[in-house]
Amino acid sequence: MDPGRAICLLSGGLDSSTCLAIARREGYECYCLSFDYGQRHAVELRAAARIANQLGAREHRTMKLDLRALGGSALTSGIEVPKHRTQADMSAGIPATYVPARNTIFLSCALAYAEVVHAAAIFIGVNAIDYSGYPDCRPEFIHSFEKMANLATKAGVEGALKTTIQTPLIAMTKAEIIRRATALGVDLSLTHSCYDPNPDGQPCGSCDSCLLRAKGFEEMGIRDPLLA
Amino acid sequence: MDPGRAICLLSGGLDSSTCLAIARREGYECYCLSFDYGQRHAVELRAAARIANQLGAREHRTMKLDLRALGGSALTSGIEVPKHRTQADMSAGIPATYVPARNTIFLSCALAYAEVVHAAAIFIGVNAIDYSGYPDCRPEFIHSFEKMANLATKAGVEGALKTTIQTPLIAMTKAEIIRRATALGVDLSLTHSCYDPNPDGQPCGSCDSCLLRAKGFEEMGIRDPLLA
Repeated sequence: MDPGRAICLLSGGLDSSTCLAIARREGYECYCLSFDYGQRHAVELRAAARIANQLGAREHRTMKLDLRALGGSALTSGIEVPKHRTQADMSAGIPATYVPARNTIFLSCALAYAEVVHAAAIFIGVNAIDYSGYPDCRPEFIHSFEKMANLATKAGVEGALKTTIQTPLIAMTKAEIIRRATALGVDLSLTHSCYDPNPDGQPCGSCDSCLLRAKGFEEMGIRDPLLA
Repeated sequence: MDPGRAICLLSGGLDSSTCLAIARREGYECYCLSFDYGQRHAVELRAAARIANQLGAREHRTMKLDLRALGGSALTSGIEVPKHRTQADMSAGIPATYVPARNTIFLSCALAYAEVVHAAAIFIGVNAIDYSGYPDCRPEFIHSFEKMANLATKAGVEGALKTTIQTPLIAMTKAEIIRRATALGVDLSLTHSCYDPNPDGQPCGSCDSCLLRAKGFEEMGIRDPLLA
């Protein structure tokens, strides 16, 4: 059965790229959505475009969204990105790279896009295992968003389309995500994970995102093609 | 008791301006948020700034948010704004001026702003009586959003701040809103309601928003100062 259309939130990182590959494998026609939100690492937008293309997305839109107007995060303001944190540090609290309500905002925009193109599914690569402790990556948040979404839209109210939020990575470790990505043929050399890349786009190697990615490749016993 | 800080979503229209006046009267320190979202009626952004100033808001931010990237509405694309609709027309279905998931997106951004400035309340001037039939103006949507919001944020998870969504206008008729606005000293000549103003910023007089506003003033038996 043709599952129809899906919106895939795509940052160009390892997780969202794998998530898109899973949606494609499940047969969805994929409409990818990226955000130009004033992040330090605009290099990720170029990665997103390459990945959308490699994985055969039907469409890829980038939406401007000036989160810097609100501030409050190391990713969108002058606050320094924390480096060299241990797993214990990451478990201890929510770090400065947390962008207030970011996934809520991203999912809300995906919901609008879903309504416009008549997509019933929204894929988001959140992960509650090897992650930085962000509140909006947890299953209880996702379930609650899904409920709200079905009260928010014309399609929901008219009963035409029930929106589901799909989080295929939520219970995977980083190593499992890399294994899955490899099995699905994702070109990981195209993905970008670093929160604070060098001016030439190279990963810093020491932010949470780089450390989690490195740990995943190490557990898998393979080399990160991005560093090759 | 000092109720603390509130985020007030402010379009510069009659409803959101009255909502801000109510929050101010209740003693909140108000942080207003407007959106430059590619709407036809950018004149409303100037109205919002004037109203925030008149009503003594602590801060007024305007966030750029390119909803045109997603399309799907007469307010953000080339679709024509429906004119001269009757009350029966408005009750019959969701019109072309509906912007997909707009209130969900606006509330999500307000939630981010609330987290940044440590505001517990978010005021939104939605109304489920004299309105255009938008799904995201209904009480069940608002309650569901509030639940989700308290699972979405760092403040919510750490138990520091419970977010409430305040909708003081939800059960008022347009005439009651105008009465309340007048009692609270809102300068209604500063507000702007039209979906499709003339190039010089004058209201068209025949879109849903103009018609609902006119009906309210007529029921009150007073003249709209905007038309004076």
